Amino acid sequence: MILIKIGGSVFSNKAGEAENFDTETVRRIAGEIAEFYPNEEFIVVHGGGSFGHYHASEHAIRDGLSGNWEADQGKRRGFSLTHQSMLRANARFIDIFLSQNLPAFSVSTSSIFLTERGEIIYADIEVIERLLELDFVPILFGDVAVDVAQGIDILSGDQIMAYLTKMLRPKKAVFLMDVDGIYDGKPGEGTLIQELARDEVPSLLDRLNCTASGTDVTGGICNKLRKAYEMANYSEVWFVNGKIPGRLAGAIRGDGFGTRLR
Amino acid sequence: MILIKIGGSVFSNKAGEAENFDTETVRRIAGEIAEFYPNEEFIVVHGGGSFGHYHASEHAIRDGLSGNWEADQGKRRGFSLTHQSMLRANARFIDIFLSQNLPAFSVSTSSIFLTERGEIIYADIEVIERLLELDFVPILFGDVAVDVAQGIDILSGDQIMAYLTKMLRPKKAVFLMDVDGIYDGKPGEGTLIQELARDEVPSLLDRLNCTASGTDVTGGICNKLRKAYEMANYSEVWFVNGKIPGRLAGAIRGDGFGTRLR
Repeated sequence: MILIKIGGSVFSNKAGEAENFDTETVRRIAGEIAEFYPNEEFIVVHGGGSFGHYHASEHAIRDGLSGNWEADQGKRRGFSLTHQSMLRANARFIDIFLSQNLPAFSVSTSSIFLTERGEIIYADIEVIERLLELDFVPILFGDVAVDVAQGIDILSGDQIMAYLTKMLRPKKAVFLMDVDGIYDGKPGEGTLIQELARDEVPSLLDRLNCTASGTDVTGGICNKLRKAYEMANYSEVWFVNGKIPGRLAGAIRGDGFGTRLR
Repeated sequence: MILIKIGGSVFSNKAGEAENFDTETVRRIAGEIAEFYPNEEFIVVHGGGSFGHYHASEHAIRDGLSGNWEADQGKRRGFSLTHQSMLRANARFIDIFLSQNLPAFSVSTSSIFLTERGEIIYADIEVIERLLELDFVPILFGDVAVDVAQGIDILSGDQIMAYLTKMLRPKKAVFLMDVDGIYDGKPGEGTLIQELARDEVPSLLDRLNCTASGTDVTGGICNKLRKAYEMANYSEVWFVNGKIPGRLAGAIRGDGFGTRLR
Protein backbone atom coordinates (compact mmCIF):
# COMPACT_ATOMS: atom_id res chain seq x y z
CA MET A 1 0.00 0.00 0.00
CA ILE A 2 1.15 3.52 -0.83
CA LEU A 3 -0.08 6.50 1.16
CA ILE A 4 -0.34 9.84 -0.64
CA LYS A 5 -1.00 13.26 0.88
CA ILE A 6 -2.16 15.92 -1.56
CA GLY A 7 -1.32 19.18 0.17
CA GLY A 8 -3.86 22.00 0.15
CA SER A 9 -1.42 24.22 -1.77
CA VAL A 10 -1.24 21.65 -4.58
CA PHE A 11 -4.94 21.77 -5.53
CA SER A 12 -6.07 25.13 -4.18
CA ASN A 13 -4.84 28.66 -3.60
CA LYS A 14 -5.51 29.57 0.00
CA ALA A 15 -5.10 33.27 -0.84
CA GLY A 16 -7.59 33.00 -3.73
CA GLU A 17 -11.36 33.03 -3.70
CA ALA A 18 -13.29 30.66 -1.42
CA GLU A 19 -13.26 27.01 -2.48
CA ASN A 20 -11.12 27.42 -5.60
CA PHE A 21 -9.99 24.06 -6.96
CA ASP A 22 -7.34 23.17 -9.55
CA THR A 23 -9.15 20.44 -11.46
CA GLU A 24 -6.38 20.01 -14.04
CA THR A 25 -3.70 19.30 -11.44
CA VAL A 26 -5.85 16.82 -9.55
CA ARG A 27 -6.82 15.04 -12.77
CA ARG A 28 -3.13 14.70 -13.66
CA ILE A 29 -2.29 13.38 -10.17
CA ALA A 30 -5.12 10.85 -10.39
CA GLY A 31 -3.77 9.80 -13.78
CA GLU A 32 -0.31 9.16 -12.30
CA ILE A 33 -1.85 7.02 -9.55
CA ALA A 34 -3.97 5.16 -12.11
CA GLU A 35 -0.76 4.00 -13.89
CA PHE A 36 -0.02 1.82 -10.86
CA TYR A 37 -3.53 0.75 -9.82
CA PRO A 38 -4.61 -2.03 -9.18
CA ASN A 39 -1.09 -3.50 -8.89
CA GLU A 40 -0.57 -1.15 -5.97
CA GLU A 41 -3.10 -0.25 -3.27
CA PHE A 42 -3.49 3.43 -2.42
CA ILE A 43 -4.88 5.57 0.35
CA VAL A 44 -5.14 9.29 -0.38
CA VAL A 45 -5.37 12.10 2.17
CA HIS A 46 -5.95 15.68 1.04
CA GLY A 47 -5.57 18.99 2.80
CA GLY A 48 -7.85 21.98 2.88
CA GLY A 49 -6.40 24.80 0.82
CA SER A 50 -9.14 27.40 0.35
CA PHE A 51 -11.74 24.92 1.68
CA GLY A 52 -12.52 24.63 5.36
CA HIS A 53 -10.07 27.37 6.28
CA TYR A 54 -12.58 30.23 6.29
CA HIS A 55 -15.03 28.76 8.81
CA ALA A 56 -12.22 27.19 10.86
CA SER A 57 -10.46 30.49 11.42
CA GLU A 58 -13.60 32.65 11.71
CA HIS A 59 -14.81 30.46 14.57
CA ALA A 60 -11.32 29.79 16.02
CA ILE A 61 -11.95 26.04 15.98
CA ARG A 62 -8.33 25.39 17.01
CA ASP A 63 -9.01 27.11 20.34
CA GLY A 64 -11.73 24.60 21.21
CA LEU A 65 -15.03 25.33 22.93
CA SER A 66 -15.05 28.26 25.35
CA GLY A 67 -17.45 27.03 28.03
CA ASN A 68 -19.87 29.87 27.26
CA TRP A 69 -22.90 28.08 25.86
CA GLU A 70 -24.14 30.85 23.56
CA ALA A 71 -20.66 31.60 22.16
CA ASP A 72 -20.12 27.88 21.72
CA GLN A 73 -23.26 27.61 19.58
CA GLY A 74 -21.41 29.75 17.03
CA LYS A 75 -18.41 27.47 17.34
CA ARG A 76 -20.50 24.34 16.89
CA ARG A 77 -21.94 25.90 13.76
CA GLY A 78 -18.45 26.76 12.47
CA PHE A 79 -17.28 23.22 13.25
CA SER A 80 -20.10 21.77 11.15
CA LEU A 81 -19.64 24.28 8.31
CA THR A 82 -15.90 23.52 8.19
CA HIS A 83 -16.65 19.82 7.74
CA GLN A 84 -19.23 20.55 5.02
CA SER A 85 -16.69 22.70 3.18
CA MET A 86 -14.13 19.89 3.35
CA LEU A 87 -16.75 17.45 2.06
CA ARG A 88 -17.19 19.73 -0.97
CA ALA A 89 -13.44 19.58 -1.64
CA ASN A 90 -13.53 15.83 -1.15
CA ALA A 91 -16.44 15.44 -3.59
CA ARG A 92 -14.28 17.08 -6.28
CA PHE A 93 -11.51 14.54 -5.64
CA ILE A 94 -13.96 11.63 -5.74
CA ASP A 95 -15.43 12.79 -9.07
CA ILE A 96 -12.03 13.22 -10.69
CA PHE A 97 -10.61 9.94 -9.38
CA LEU A 98 -13.70 8.06 -10.60
CA SER A 99 -13.26 9.67 -14.03
CA GLN A 100 -9.74 8.13 -14.11
CA ASN A 101 -11.20 4.68 -13.33
CA LEU A 102 -9.93 4.78 -9.73
CA PRO A 103 -12.71 3.59 -7.36
CA ALA A 104 -12.20 6.32 -4.81
CA PHE A 105 -14.41 6.26 -1.75
CA SER A 106 -14.91 9.10 0.71
CA VAL A 107 -14.14 8.34 4.37
CA SER A 108 -15.12 11.15 6.74
CA THR A 109 -12.15 11.84 8.98
CA SER A 110 -14.25 13.39 11.73
CA SER A 111 -16.47 10.29 11.92
CA ILE A 112 -13.57 8.00 12.89
CA PHE A 113 -10.91 10.01 14.76
CA LEU A 114 -10.77 11.69 18.16
CA THR A 115 -7.97 14.06 19.07
CA GLU A 116 -6.37 15.46 22.20
CA ARG A 117 -5.29 19.01 21.34
CA GLY A 118 -5.03 18.13 17.67
CA GLU A 119 -3.10 14.85 18.14
CA ILE A 120 -4.93 11.62 17.32
CA ILE A 121 -5.67 9.57 20.43
CA TYR A 122 -8.42 7.33 19.07
CA ALA A 123 -9.25 6.01 15.64
CA ASP A 124 -11.30 3.33 14.01
CA ILE A 125 -9.75 2.37 10.67
CA GLU A 126 -11.62 -0.90 10.25
CA VAL A 127 -13.62 0.43 7.28
CA ILE A 128 -10.47 1.80 5.62
CA GLU A 129 -8.74 -1.57 5.83
CA ARG A 130 -11.80 -3.36 4.42
CA LEU A 131 -12.06 -0.85 1.57
CA LEU A 132 -8.43 -1.60 0.64
CA GLU A 133 -9.14 -5.34 0.60
CA LEU A 134 -11.99 -4.65 -1.82
CA ASP A 135 -9.68 -2.64 -4.16
CA PHE A 136 -11.19 0.74 -3.32
CA VAL A 137 -9.03 3.86 -2.99
CA PRO A 138 -10.11 5.45 0.31
CA ILE A 139 -9.83 9.24 0.30
CA LEU A 140 -9.62 10.99 3.68
CA PHE A 141 -9.04 14.67 4.36
CA GLY A 142 -7.91 17.17 6.93
CA ASP A 143 -11.04 17.92 8.93
CA VAL A 144 -12.50 19.06 12.21
CA ALA A 145 -12.37 16.56 15.07
CA VAL A 146 -13.98 16.01 18.42
CA ASP A 147 -11.22 16.69 20.93
CA VAL A 148 -11.22 15.09 24.37
CA ALA A 149 -9.32 18.00 25.95
CA GLN A 150 -11.04 21.05 24.49
CA GLY A 151 -14.22 19.77 22.84
CA ILE A 152 -13.33 20.51 19.23
CA ASP A 153 -10.17 20.98 17.19
CA ILE A 154 -8.71 20.63 13.70
CA LEU A 155 -7.12 17.36 12.59
CA SER A 156 -4.56 17.98 9.86
CA GLY A 157 -3.93 15.70 6.90
CA ASP A 158 -0.32 15.40 8.07
CA GLN A 159 -1.42 13.93 11.39
CA ILE A 160 -3.57 11.42 9.55
CA MET A 161 -0.57 10.49 7.38
CA ALA A 162 1.58 9.82 10.45
CA TYR A 163 -1.14 7.77 12.12
CA LEU A 164 -1.94 5.63 9.09
CA THR A 165 1.78 5.05 8.46
CA LYS A 166 2.26 3.69 11.97
CA MET A 167 -0.82 1.51 11.83
CA LEU A 168 -0.72 0.25 8.25
CA ARG A 169 3.02 0.34 7.39
CA PRO A 170 2.77 1.41 3.75
CA LYS A 171 5.61 0.70 1.30
CA LYS A 172 6.00 4.42 1.06
CA ALA A 173 4.29 7.62 2.12
CA VAL A 174 4.39 10.49 -0.36
CA PHE A 175 3.72 14.14 0.47
CA LEU A 176 2.77 16.22 -2.58
CA MET A 177 3.65 19.87 -2.06
CA ASP A 178 3.93 23.03 -4.18
CA VAL A 179 7.75 23.03 -3.82
CA ASP A 180 10.29 20.42 -4.93
CA GLY A 181 10.85 18.85 -1.52
CA ILE A 182 12.58 19.71 1.75
CA TYR A 183 15.12 22.54 1.56
CA ASP A 184 18.02 23.20 3.86
CA GLY A 185 16.76 26.74 4.35
CA LYS A 186 13.82 28.63 2.85
CA PRO A 187 11.97 26.73 0.05
CA GLY A 188 13.40 27.86 -3.29
CA GLU A 189 16.39 29.55 -1.62
CA GLY A 190 18.24 26.91 0.37
CA THR A 191 19.54 23.71 -1.21
CA LEU A 192 17.02 20.97 -2.01
CA ILE A 193 17.80 17.90 0.08
CA GLN A 194 17.44 14.88 -2.16
CA GLU A 195 18.43 12.19 0.31
CA LEU A 196 17.79 12.51 4.02
CA ALA A 197 18.54 9.94 6.69
CA ARG A 198 16.24 9.75 9.66
CA ASP A 199 18.97 10.63 12.15
CA GLU A 200 19.71 13.84 10.24
CA VAL A 201 16.21 15.18 10.85
CA PRO A 202 16.68 16.60 14.40
CA SER A 203 19.61 18.81 13.35
CA LEU A 204 17.71 19.91 10.23
CA LEU A 205 14.75 20.89 12.44
CA ASP A 206 17.17 23.01 14.45
CA ARG A 207 18.57 24.72 11.35
CA LEU A 208 15.04 25.46 10.09
CA ASN A 209 14.12 27.09 13.44
CA CYS A 210 11.41 24.50 14.00
CA THR A 211 11.90 24.40 17.75
CA ALA A 212 8.97 26.80 18.25
CA SER A 213 5.65 25.67 16.82
CA GLY A 214 4.89 26.51 13.17
CA THR A 215 2.84 29.48 12.01
CA ASP A 216 0.66 27.70 9.46
CA VAL A 217 -2.75 26.59 10.80
CA THR A 218 -1.64 22.97 10.29
CA GLY A 219 1.98 23.48 11.26
CA GLY A 220 3.55 23.84 7.80
CA ILE A 221 6.90 22.37 6.91
CA CYS A 222 8.20 22.03 10.47
CA ASN A 223 5.22 19.94 11.50
CA LYS A 224 5.48 17.92 8.30
CA LEU A 225 9.13 17.19 9.02
CA ARG A 226 8.45 16.27 12.64
CA LYS A 227 5.72 13.90 11.49
CA ALA A 228 8.01 12.46 8.80
CA TYR A 229 10.61 11.81 11.50
CA GLU A 230 8.06 9.66 13.35
CA MET A 231 6.94 8.01 10.11
CA ALA A 232 10.45 7.08 8.94
CA ASN A 233 10.54 4.28 11.50
CA TYR A 234 7.74 2.57 9.59
CA SER A 235 7.98 3.61 5.96
CA GLU A 236 10.07 5.37 3.36
CA VAL A 237 8.83 8.96 3.11
CA TRP A 238 8.94 11.15 -0.02
CA PHE A 239 8.35 14.85 -0.46
CA VAL A 240 7.76 15.81 -4.10
CA ASN A 241 6.28 18.63 -6.11
CA GLY A 242 2.65 17.81 -6.90
CA LYS A 243 2.39 20.66 -9.39
CA ILE A 244 4.92 19.14 -11.80
CA PRO A 245 3.90 16.22 -14.03
CA GLY A 246 5.70 12.95 -13.38
CA ARG A 247 7.08 13.73 -9.94
CA LEU A 248 4.47 11.62 -8.14
CA ALA A 249 4.92 8.72 -10.56
CA GLY A 250 8.69 8.99 -9.96
CA ALA A 251 8.21 8.73 -6.21
CA ILE A 252 5.91 5.72 -6.62
CA ARG A 253 8.48 4.00 -8.89
CA GLY A 254 11.27 5.05 -6.53
CA ASP A 255 13.51 6.95 -8.95
CA GLY A 256 11.79 10.34 -8.77
CA PHE A 257 12.98 13.87 -8.08
CA GLY A 258 12.34 15.30 -4.63
CA THR A 259 13.35 14.51 -1.06
CA ARG A 260 13.53 10.90 0.00
CA LEU A 261 13.68 10.16 3.72
CA ARG A 262 14.66 6.70 4.92
CA MET B 1 -31.87 11.44 24.07
CA ILE B 2 -34.51 11.19 21.35
CA LEU B 3 -33.82 9.40 18.10
CA ILE B 4 -35.63 10.60 14.97
CA LYS B 5 -35.77 8.94 11.57
CA ILE B 6 -36.86 11.18 8.72
CA GLY B 7 -38.08 8.77 6.07
CA GLY B 8 -37.07 9.32 2.44
CA SER B 9 -40.73 9.77 1.46
CA VAL B 10 -41.07 12.67 3.93
CA PHE B 11 -38.46 14.92 2.30
CA SER B 12 -38.26 13.60 -1.24
CA ASN B 13 -40.37 12.05 -3.96
CA LYS B 14 -38.69 8.88 -5.14
CA ALA B 15 -40.78 8.91 -8.32
CA GLY B 16 -39.83 12.53 -9.05
CA GLU B 17 -36.72 13.96 -10.65
CA ALA B 18 -33.28 13.00 -9.33
CA GLU B 19 -32.35 14.51 -5.96
CA ASN B 20 -35.56 16.48 -5.41
CA PHE B 21 -35.77 17.81 -1.86
CA ASP B 22 -38.69 19.27 0.10
CA THR B 23 -36.94 22.15 1.86
CA GLU B 24 -40.11 23.50 3.47
CA THR B 25 -40.97 20.22 5.17
CA VAL B 26 -37.45 19.72 6.51
CA ARG B 27 -37.33 23.30 7.79
CA ARG B 28 -40.59 22.74 9.64
CA ILE B 29 -39.34 19.45 11.12
CA ALA B 30 -36.11 21.14 12.26
CA GLY B 31 -38.22 23.87 13.82
CA GLU B 32 -40.22 21.30 15.82
CA ILE B 33 -36.99 19.73 17.07
CA ALA B 34 -35.60 23.16 17.93
CA GLU B 35 -38.54 23.74 20.34
CA PHE B 36 -37.05 21.04 22.59
CA TYR B 37 -33.31 21.61 22.08
CA PRO B 38 -31.09 21.87 24.16
CA ASN B 39 -33.29 20.49 26.94
CA GLU B 40 -33.43 17.26 24.97
CA GLU B 41 -30.57 15.65 23.05
CA PHE B 42 -31.31 14.45 19.54
CA ILE B 43 -29.83 12.11 16.95
CA VAL B 44 -31.35 12.28 13.48
CA VAL B 45 -31.19 9.62 10.77
CA HIS B 46 -32.55 10.30 7.31
CA GLY B 47 -33.40 8.02 4.43
CA GLY B 48 -32.63 8.36 0.75
CA GLY B 49 -35.78 9.25 -1.17
CA SER B 50 -34.72 10.29 -4.67
CA PHE B 51 -31.07 10.49 -3.51
CA GLY B 52 -28.79 7.48 -3.64
CA HIS B 53 -31.49 5.29 -5.13
CA TYR B 54 -30.52 5.79 -8.78
CA HIS B 55 -26.89 4.66 -8.49
CA ALA B 56 -27.74 1.95 -5.94
CA SER B 57 -30.24 0.26 -8.22
CA GLU B 58 -28.35 0.87 -11.49
CA HIS B 59 -25.33 -0.94 -10.06
CA ALA B 60 -27.35 -3.49 -8.02
CA ILE B 61 -25.40 -2.63 -4.88
CA ARG B 62 -27.69 -4.85 -2.79
CA ASP B 63 -26.41 -7.88 -4.71
CA GLY B 64 -22.84 -7.24 -3.57
CA LEU B 65 -19.69 -7.64 -5.64
CA SER B 66 -19.80 -10.30 -8.36
CA GLY B 67 -16.24 -11.61 -8.28
CA ASN B 68 -15.64 -10.43 -11.86
CA TRP B 69 -13.04 -7.70 -11.46
CA GLU B 70 -14.04 -5.56 -14.44
CA ALA B 71 -17.76 -5.74 -13.66
CA ASP B 72 -16.98 -4.97 -10.05
CA GLN B 73 -15.17 -1.77 -11.06
CA GLY B 74 -18.58 -0.51 -12.20
CA LYS B 75 -20.06 -1.58 -8.88
CA ARG B 76 -17.31 0.12 -6.90
CA ARG B 77 -18.03 3.27 -8.86
CA GLY B 78 -21.76 2.97 -8.17
CA PHE B 79 -21.04 2.36 -4.47
CA SER B 80 -19.03 5.58 -4.29
CA LEU B 81 -21.56 7.59 -6.33
CA THR B 82 -24.39 6.38 -4.09
CA HIS B 83 -22.54 7.66 -1.02
CA GLN B 84 -21.83 11.01 -2.71
CA SER B 85 -25.51 11.38 -3.58
CA MET B 86 -26.47 10.67 0.04
CA LEU B 87 -23.90 13.24 1.19
CA ARG B 88 -25.67 15.80 -1.02
CA ALA B 89 -29.00 15.00 0.69
CA ASN B 90 -27.27 15.17 4.06
CA ALA B 91 -25.74 18.57 3.23
CA ARG B 92 -29.26 19.93 2.70
CA PHE B 93 -30.29 18.69 6.15
CA ILE B 94 -27.20 20.18 7.78
CA ASP B 95 -27.82 23.59 6.18
CA ILE B 96 -31.46 23.68 7.22
CA PHE B 97 -30.83 22.47 10.78
CA LEU B 98 -28.07 25.07 11.23
CA SER B 99 -30.47 27.75 10.00
CA GLN B 100 -32.81 26.72 12.85
CA ASN B 101 -29.97 27.11 15.38
CA LEU B 102 -29.56 23.35 15.75
CA PRO B 103 -25.82 22.45 15.64
CA ALA B 104 -26.23 19.50 13.31
CA PHE B 105 -23.11 17.57 12.40
CA SER B 106 -22.77 15.08 9.57
CA VAL B 107 -21.61 11.57 10.52
CA SER B 108 -20.88 9.35 7.53
CA THR B 109 -22.67 6.07 8.08
CA SER B 110 -20.40 4.11 5.75
CA SER B 111 -17.29 5.29 7.65
CA ILE B 112 -18.41 3.66 10.92
CA PHE B 113 -20.60 0.62 10.17
CA LEU B 114 -19.95 -2.79 8.64
CA THR B 115 -22.79 -5.07 7.63
CA GLU B 116 -23.36 -8.76 6.95
CA ARG B 117 -25.98 -8.95 4.19
CA GLY B 118 -27.37 -5.56 5.18
CA GLU B 119 -27.50 -6.22 8.95
CA ILE B 120 -25.09 -4.26 11.14
CA ILE B 121 -22.40 -6.49 12.63
CA TYR B 122 -19.83 -3.83 13.54
CA ALA B 123 -20.07 -0.18 14.47
CA ASP B 124 -18.03 2.51 16.10
CA ILE B 125 -20.32 5.09 17.66
CA GLU B 126 -17.69 6.72 19.87
CA VAL B 127 -17.79 9.96 17.86
CA ILE B 128 -21.61 10.07 17.96
CA GLU B 129 -21.64 9.74 21.76
CA ARG B 130 -19.02 12.47 22.13
CA LEU B 131 -20.94 14.77 19.80
CA LEU B 132 -24.04 14.34 22.00
CA GLU B 133 -22.04 15.24 25.11
CA LEU B 134 -20.96 18.44 23.33
CA ASP B 135 -24.60 19.36 22.51
CA PHE B 136 -24.31 18.64 18.80
CA VAL B 137 -27.15 17.02 16.85
CA PRO B 138 -25.49 14.18 14.89
CA ILE B 139 -27.18 13.47 11.56
CA LEU B 140 -26.63 10.05 10.00
CA PHE B 141 -28.24 8.61 6.89
CA GLY B 142 -29.07 5.46 5.04
CA ASP B 143 -25.95 4.73 3.03
CA VAL B 144 -23.82 2.12 1.31
CA ALA B 145 -21.78 -0.13 3.60
CA VAL B 146 -18.84 -2.47 3.37
CA ASP B 147 -20.35 -5.93 3.85
CA VAL B 148 -18.31 -8.81 5.25
CA ALA B 149 -20.34 -11.43 3.36
CA GLN B 150 -20.69 -9.93 -0.11
CA GLY B 151 -18.27 -7.01 -0.22
CA ILE B 152 -20.78 -4.18 -0.47
CA ASP B 153 -24.42 -3.60 0.45
CA ILE B 154 -26.94 -0.93 1.44
CA LEU B 155 -27.45 -0.02 5.09
CA SER B 156 -30.92 1.39 5.63
CA GLY B 157 -31.79 4.19 8.02
CA ASP B 158 -34.18 1.79 9.78
CA GLN B 159 -31.33 -0.59 10.60
CA ILE B 160 -29.35 2.32 12.02
CA MET B 161 -32.36 3.29 14.15
CA ALA B 162 -32.60 -0.22 15.61
CA TYR B 163 -28.88 -0.38 16.31
CA LEU B 164 -28.67 3.04 17.97
CA THR B 165 -31.76 2.26 20.06
CA LYS B 166 -30.17 -0.89 21.42
CA MET B 167 -26.85 0.76 22.14
CA LEU B 168 -27.94 4.18 23.37
CA ARG B 169 -31.40 3.50 24.87
CA PRO B 170 -33.13 6.74 23.87
CA LYS B 171 -36.21 8.00 25.76
CA LYS B 172 -38.07 7.48 22.52
CA ALA B 173 -37.44 6.67 18.89
CA VAL B 174 -39.67 8.43 16.36
CA PHE B 175 -40.18 7.35 12.75
CA LEU B 176 -41.44 10.16 10.52
CA MET B 177 -43.38 8.78 7.54
CA ASP B 178 -45.70 10.10 4.83
CA VAL B 179 -48.69 8.31 6.42
CA ASP B 180 -50.25 8.76 9.87
CA GLY B 181 -48.68 5.70 11.46
CA ILE B 182 -49.10 1.91 11.35
CA TYR B 183 -52.36 0.67 9.86
CA ASP B 184 -54.06 -2.62 10.43
CA GLY B 185 -54.17 -3.15 6.68
CA LYS B 186 -53.09 -0.96 3.77
CA PRO B 187 -52.01 2.58 4.76
CA GLY B 188 -55.04 4.90 4.38
CA GLU B 189 -57.44 1.95 4.08
CA GLY B 190 -57.07 -0.13 7.22
CA THR B 191 -57.60 1.31 10.69
CA LEU B 192 -54.79 3.44 12.13
CA ILE B 193 -53.38 1.72 15.21
CA GLN B 194 -52.85 4.38 17.85
CA GLU B 195 -51.60 2.17 20.65
CA LEU B 196 -49.66 -1.00 20.05
CA ALA B 197 -48.18 -3.32 22.66
CA ARG B 198 -44.96 -5.09 21.79
CA ASP B 199 -46.54 -8.55 22.10
CA GLU B 200 -49.20 -7.61 19.52
CA VAL B 201 -46.56 -7.05 16.82
CA PRO B 202 -46.03 -10.67 15.67
CA SER B 203 -49.73 -11.20 14.90
CA LEU B 204 -49.87 -7.80 13.15
CA LEU B 205 -46.89 -8.81 11.00
CA ASP B 206 -48.87 -11.91 10.03
CA ARG B 207 -51.98 -9.90 9.13
CA LEU B 208 -49.88 -7.52 7.00
CA ASN B 209 -48.36 -10.46 5.08
CA CYS B 210 -44.90 -9.52 6.29
CA THR B 211 -43.73 -13.12 6.50
CA ALA B 212 -42.00 -12.80 3.11
CA SER B 213 -39.43 -10.03 2.81
CA GLY B 214 -40.68 -6.58 1.79
CA THR B 215 -40.62 -5.24 -1.75
CA ASP B 216 -39.22 -1.78 -1.00
CA VAL B 217 -35.42 -1.51 -1.41
CA THR B 218 -35.14 -0.91 2.32
CA GLY B 219 -37.93 -3.24 3.36
CA GLY B 220 -40.75 -0.73 3.75
CA ILE B 221 -43.31 -0.98 6.50
CA CYS B 222 -42.74 -4.68 7.27
CA ASN B 223 -39.07 -4.15 7.90
CA LYS B 224 -39.83 -1.02 9.93
CA LEU B 225 -42.27 -2.97 12.07
CA ARG B 226 -39.85 -5.85 12.56
CA LYS B 227 -37.16 -3.39 13.61
CA ALA B 228 -39.61 -1.60 15.91
CA TYR B 229 -40.38 -4.94 17.55
CA GLU B 230 -36.67 -5.32 18.41
CA MET B 231 -36.46 -1.67 19.49
CA ALA B 232 -39.48 -1.80 21.80
CA ASN B 233 -37.40 -3.72 24.36
CA TYR B 234 -35.23 -0.65 24.78
CA SER B 235 -37.35 2.40 24.00
CA GLU B 236 -40.83 3.68 23.33
CA VAL B 237 -41.30 3.82 19.54
CA TRP B 238 -43.51 6.28 17.66
CA PHE B 239 -44.66 6.32 14.04
CA VAL B 240 -46.04 9.69 12.99
CA ASN B 241 -46.74 11.65 9.84
CA GLY B 242 -43.76 13.88 9.09
CA LYS B 243 -45.69 15.80 6.44
CA ILE B 244 -48.18 17.26 8.92
CA PRO B 245 -47.15 20.15 11.20
CA GLY B 246 -47.10 19.38 14.90
CA ARG B 247 -47.09 15.59 14.71
CA LEU B 248 -43.39 15.28 15.51
CA ALA B 249 -43.66 17.78 18.36
CA GLY B 250 -46.62 15.75 19.67
CA ALA B 251 -44.57 12.56 19.65
CA ILE B 252 -41.69 14.29 21.44
CA ARG B 253 -44.06 15.65 24.11
CA GLY B 254 -45.80 12.27 24.28
CA ASP B 255 -49.38 13.32 23.54
CA GLY B 256 -49.21 13.27 19.76
CA PHE B 257 -51.26 11.63 17.02
CA GLY B 258 -49.83 8.51 15.39
CA THR B 259 -48.87 5.00 16.46
CA ARG B 260 -47.19 4.53 19.79
CA LEU B 261 -45.50 1.21 20.47
CA ARG B 262 -44.48 0.28 23.99
